Amino acid sequence: MHPLRQHIEKIISLSDTEFEHVLSHFEHKSLRKHQYLVQEGEYDKYDNWVIKGCLKAFYTNSDGKEHILQFAIEDWWVADYDAYFNTLQATINVDCMEPCEILQISLANREKLCTDLHKMEYFFRQKITNGYVALQKRILSLLSNNPQERYEEFIRLYPTLKDRIPKKYIAAYLGVSRETLSRLYSNNS
Amino acid sequence: MHPLRQHIEKIISLSDTEFEHVLSHFEHKSLRKHQYLVQEGEYDKYDNWVIKGCLKAFYTNSDGKEHILQFAIEDWWVADYDAYFNTLQATINVDCMEPCEILQISLANREKLCTDLHKMEYFFRQKITNGYVALQKRILSLLSNNPQERYEEFIRLYPTLKDRIPKKYIAAYLGVSRETLSRLYSNNS
Repeated sequence: MHPLRQHIEKIISLSDTEFEHVLSHFEHKSLRKHQYLVQEGEYDKYDNWVIKGCLKAFYTNSDGKEHILQFAIEDWWVADYDAYFNTLQATINVDCMEPCEILQISLANREKLCTDLHKMEYFFRQKITNGYVALQKRILSLLSNNPQERYEEFIRLYPTLKDRIPKKYIAAYLGVSRETLSRLYSNNS
Repeated sequence: MHPLRQHIEKIISLSDTEFEHVLSHFEHKSLRKHQYLVQEGEYDKYDNWVIKGCLKAFYTNSDGKEHILQFAIEDWWVADYDAYFNTLQATINVDCMEPCEILQISLANREKLCTDLHKMEYFFRQKITNGYVALQKRILSLLSNNPQERYEEFIRLYPTLKDRIPKKYIAAYLGVSRETLSRLYSNNS
């Protein structure tokens, strides 16, 4: 089964014809390691579903420090969603930490799929609802957890990311210093 | 026009019959100041739309410190969404900072409305999408902004909340100390 169909059928069922219709709204893109999928200042025309690879979405503030909004690996979605949904210039960057294979969908095609197939509207509502709940948990973690608690929660939620993503980026995701994270790694290895 | 209809019709159009159908899925609730709408450890059976009043959703960690996940005033929605969508016991509390009038909808009724009316599915997808984008911005603010920048962003986004909500709760929302916030208030008054 096509990996995108597997992904969608975790939430809804599609006939072969329906899946072909859905797939026809996506475009395939390959990127090399270090290439950018989204660049600050450009319009982010696509929501991106990862077939293969590992990416990071990050914001660079005025002193040049990188803050990680999200990671994305196989089966995850990534974009500058403010820019994508509101047709604005991107304020974040998304780049590839590994070579990546992506399926991209424009906002017009996404909305068209939701209009064509009520169950695709349901699918996207469920996905964004799960994402909303995850972001609320992350906000509470940033507000109330100390660095060790944040790190332990990250390892618990995303066990496969620990050895795939350089420590400096995990530190920038958790909002802790690299030195603190190195200490936590050595205590938990 | 009913305030809920005004709220929904910012995104979709409803006939009189459709709105009556939508409204019939909600229940009305009145709460006094300081009463709880959601209590930690109980099931959160309702999503809540605020007709009148002001609430805070907060998490209390093991040392008794309150961290504010969100505020809610007229026209906003509030719940423990993890508990609501996943039928779990609430891990946060929602209480009233003013007397409140609320319209509540159970998850079963919310899903039924989405099934009955494709455009209500669209409505709820748009609402949660806007919420998702706002949470991503808040995460970046928590990661990259200093207390003054967070405070200024809060005032810009929610100008009416500054004089309605006690400073200690705004501090607990921004993740800054009360002393720091008082200093910022006196500089911006």
